[in-house]
Amino acid sequence: MAQKPSIPKGTRDFNSEEVSKRNYIIDTIKSQFQLFGFQPIETPSFEHSDTLMGKYGDEGDRLIFKILNSGEYLKGVDETFYLNIIRIQNLIRDGYERLLKHLKAQNDLNSLFERDEQGFMELINEWKIFQDQDYELFGFRKSYILLKLSRAFYESNFGENKNLSYSYTGLLVKEILDKYIRESSNKIVSSISEKALRYDLTVPFARYVVQHQNDIEFPFKRYQIQPVWRADRPQKGRFREFFQCDADVVGSTSLLQEVEFIQLYDAVFTSLRLEGVTIKINNRKILSGIAEVIGAQDKLIDFTVALDKLDKIGEEKVKQEMRNKGISEAGIENLQPLFALSGDFSSQVESLKSILATSDIGQKGIEELQFISDAIETLGLKTAKLQLDVTLARGLNYYTGAIFEVSAPEGVKMGSIGGGGRYDDLTGIFGLKNMSGVGISFGLDRIYLVLEELGLFPETVSEQTKVLFINFGSKEAMGCLKAIKALREKGVKAELYPDDAKMKKQMNHANRRNIPYVVLVGEQELEASNFTLKNMASGEQSTLSLSDLLQKLS
Amino acid sequence: MAQKPSIPKGTRDFNSEEVSKRNYIIDTIKSQFQLFGFQPIETPSFEHSDTLMGKYGDEGDRLIFKILNSGEYLKGVDETFYLNIIRIQNLIRDGYERLLKHLKAQNDLNSLFERDEQGFMELINEWKIFQDQDYELFGFRKSYILLKLSRAFYESNFGENKNLSYSYTGLLVKEILDKYIRESSNKIVSSISEKALRYDLTVPFARYVVQHQNDIEFPFKRYQIQPVWRADRPQKGRFREFFQCDADVVGSTSLLQEVEFIQLYDAVFTSLRLEGVTIKINNRKILSGIAEVIGAQDKLIDFTVALDKLDKIGEEKVKQEMRNKGISEAGIENLQPLFALSGDFSSQVESLKSILATSDIGQKGIEELQFISDAIETLGLKTAKLQLDVTLARGLNYYTGAIFEVSAPEGVKMGSIGGGGRYDDLTGIFGLKNMSGVGISFGLDRIYLVLEELGLFPETVSEQTKVLFINFGSKEAMGCLKAIKALREKGVKAELYPDDAKMKKQMNHANRRNIPYVVLVGEQELEASNFTLKNMASGEQSTLSLSDLLQKLS
Repeated sequence: MAQKPSIPKGTRDFNSEEVSKRNYIIDTIKSQFQLFGFQPIETPSFEHSDTLMGKYGDEGDRLIFKILNSGEYLKGVDETFYLNIIRIQNLIRDGYERLLKHLKAQNDLNSLFERDEQGFMELINEWKIFQDQDYELFGFRKSYILLKLSRAFYESNFGENKNLSYSYTGLLVKEILDKYIRESSNKIVSSISEKALRYDLTVPFARYVVQHQNDIEFPFKRYQIQPVWRADRPQKGRFREFFQCDADVVGSTSLLQEVEFIQLYDAVFTSLRLEGVTIKINNRKILSGIAEVIGAQDKLIDFTVALDKLDKIGEEKVKQEMRNKGISEAGIENLQPLFALSGDFSSQVESLKSILATSDIGQKGIEELQFISDAIETLGLKTAKLQLDVTLARGLNYYTGAIFEVSAPEGVKMGSIGGGGRYDDLTGIFGLKNMSGVGISFGLDRIYLVLEELGLFPETVSEQTKVLFINFGSKEAMGCLKAIKALREKGVKAELYPDDAKMKKQMNHANRRNIPYVVLVGEQELEASNFTLKNMASGEQSTLSLSDLLQKLS
Repeated sequence: MAQKPSIPKGTRDFNSEEVSKRNYIIDTIKSQFQLFGFQPIETPSFEHSDTLMGKYGDEGDRLIFKILNSGEYLKGVDETFYLNIIRIQNLIRDGYERLLKHLKAQNDLNSLFERDEQGFMELINEWKIFQDQDYELFGFRKSYILLKLSRAFYESNFGENKNLSYSYTGLLVKEILDKYIRESSNKIVSSISEKALRYDLTVPFARYVVQHQNDIEFPFKRYQIQPVWRADRPQKGRFREFFQCDADVVGSTSLLQEVEFIQLYDAVFTSLRLEGVTIKINNRKILSGIAEVIGAQDKLIDFTVALDKLDKIGEEKVKQEMRNKGISEAGIENLQPLFALSGDFSSQVESLKSILATSDIGQKGIEELQFISDAIETLGLKTAKLQLDVTLARGLNYYTGAIFEVSAPEGVKMGSIGGGGRYDDLTGIFGLKNMSGVGISFGLDRIYLVLEELGLFPETVSEQTKVLFINFGSKEAMGCLKAIKALREKGVKAELYPDDAKMKKQMNHANRRNIPYVVLVGEQELEASNFTLKNMASGEQSTLSLSDLLQKLS
């Protein structure tokens, strides 16, 4: 490999500073998860394909990374696949030969090709060729195939030029084959791949809960911080490998969980010194209620998808989209108060109450919101604010109650930095019914970008080695290593430059790595058991005993 | 999915206790890595296939997990593959028809089948059928194919029974096809899979260094703690997904690195309270020297593989294996002092000096060992001991200098819990020459088992929630949440039982989760702003104010 190596698109290398900053965020989230009583679990990077497939919709299935079975990859492929390839070839070849026989029996070949398609087909039908077998191949029309075959006959000088016959029928075979192979991909994949990389942490968590249900004490509060993989088209800020940081509770329907999750968001972002985030809340029941009120229950998804865009495209375009999706003018009219919703949480709730007066499910949603909002008012938030956002739908259809989304402080252009909600039947897909779940997620990559933009990473986060000992030769180096050992025992990150290189090179090394101190031990210092400590920023130098050095640096 | 879900063989779910214990080991290793001046990097879970393939030998290539290209999986397959499938069919069919024609022209068909194979082939050759095309198909002998075809002719009543002809030639097609497909697997895989899961951390590190060489300040000391994947046959203690914890230095040939790595092993295992591990050391140059002295330079690998088994199979069997591999009796004779090597480090080194007196490279190896051993003697080790082990080869052919392996304290049955060495040309595979590397690795899973066996995990490691507040209803719950908020701010892991369930159920929950304290706030306590704290182990109860509660628990 002579060319410079690279990594797959959508993936990233992280250097030391990036790892340290990412770990700072992860550790902050982790310690809040723990303070709130969440327990860590970890699941394998890959799951059985059927654990994941069909859980994220067709688009999701497409974006799941599949792992090839090991060994003879093609062994598992159903032989029908190969036999069909041969069948395509045979049918075309047989068909051509039969056509040839019939055509050659015609007296006036030239007039044959002057017929229009309709006339040609009628003639072919009269001859009753192909009647005894299935020649409608893989979605290709009979007339299309016959025309292509007769063209082969015509172009090959009425079948005389074998090579030309072969070329023309070959092209047809290739065309049909290409389509067949393209369409077989999805069927084939399940026979050559039985494992797939984790797509999110929620489905593996549901699988975990069902698999280990007898060992789990419910309600079960778990957190999980692991990478997930998606074969999405990579773009700015969207990666094919990224970490998810999730906390979920399963086995309790108590709305106090929602209250706790709002406090948890507040606690994490406050710890990260990211003050002023907005925690937006909505409730699926309110969306259902609105759909009911405007007579669009059957269009709930179309409706919420349109409503979700209010921020981006504005009221008029949202209405237009709803009209396009078949929501009645009267229904849209009923929505008007919704677009005008404003004021604080309570006054918005009051408006909702009147909008949803006739919807039971809507009323239930309002009750839930009210409970959560009252509790948060009583308990208080440190730096975040809670905001009702009836346009919040998060595209995900599995939420059944509360829906959360967190946005960065005003002035920072960034999508949501967290989200979550309640799903009444988390584990049903794996056969364990009636397990309500509620959870939230933190968007590590986006939080990173926000902290970077606002300069909120503590300076100490990426602090590496504190002191570099300059190497003056092996005798001096041994003296240094003794001091270094003592420093490390006191928790000081200390290193010796490994080679007896030029002084300037070693000092440059310290500079380039932002190491704040160097220690110089030459022959003289070694004899006197002294250490010359240099502050790289100020240039200040002092000669110290070992114990003074330890005290100064630790 | 009605059946209970499961995970792929060789992978693991980790529960809360396991995650905590694993993190305890990882965090201990990580903080020592940092004290020694190593900087973290992380690389993607998957790399371009050609970054990994061919780096670990044939066996390694086989064990690398390949990821299917997304989208139309079969799109990338060279069409030659499909055309060959068709070609197999066509050639057999054409061949059969030609043979049919010739055979039918024979007067005495029955006598034809009485000939032996040789005679039959001669006849066939005389007829000169198939001469104009390539009919030696995919390794199947011409005579075999002709015999099968003539059998089809014979069994189908001299070609009269078309169905039987078709069945017999079909069987032959299938047989050839199966072999062709089996043998195509490896070729096909490169067109349907361009990414593969990381197999170790060393090759991705080498790739990282070359790719980012302009941003890296050398010598570069990096650590990396990430999972790797191998499609090994799973067995006790061997997994398909496991963590590696590696520290390497690249860009320095100084032997002080080896000295530092020995100290690092000592520091980590001492921190883990795993005292008395043995750090075994050897040097590839000594192995080369020995091979030279016994005249088996060209058999260095066979020789080291055999020597490596000394512990397991004993001196006699090792000698037998060497004889089998063609090492001369005189050579094995010269080895005798090696088998008798004993005593402390220095006396072993003295024996080696005389054994290797005539080998330059051997002498160089001894010098290196001596330097390292002297340095370690000067600096001292806390709890580990350093041992020379000339049988240590670690199977890996890329080591060029020091070779390390760590074994658990005596009495613990466990393979090596760490290993490493120096490789002079780490990055050469990616085109960056003359970069010496040296590194070590910690075996997380085995260290876990050893700590578990010896009861060395600190009790606090898996300590979760410290106090559970019992839920007596929503009014009381709100009072609890206020106290819980205050506790969390003081760093106490505190939770409210989410549902207003029966008291007994809630107490059981605390018990099953080993939560040491519960707090009871009934109507009375709520009114008096009091908290009844119960110690779950002693049963002791006391009623406290909020500030006393905070003080007591934090």
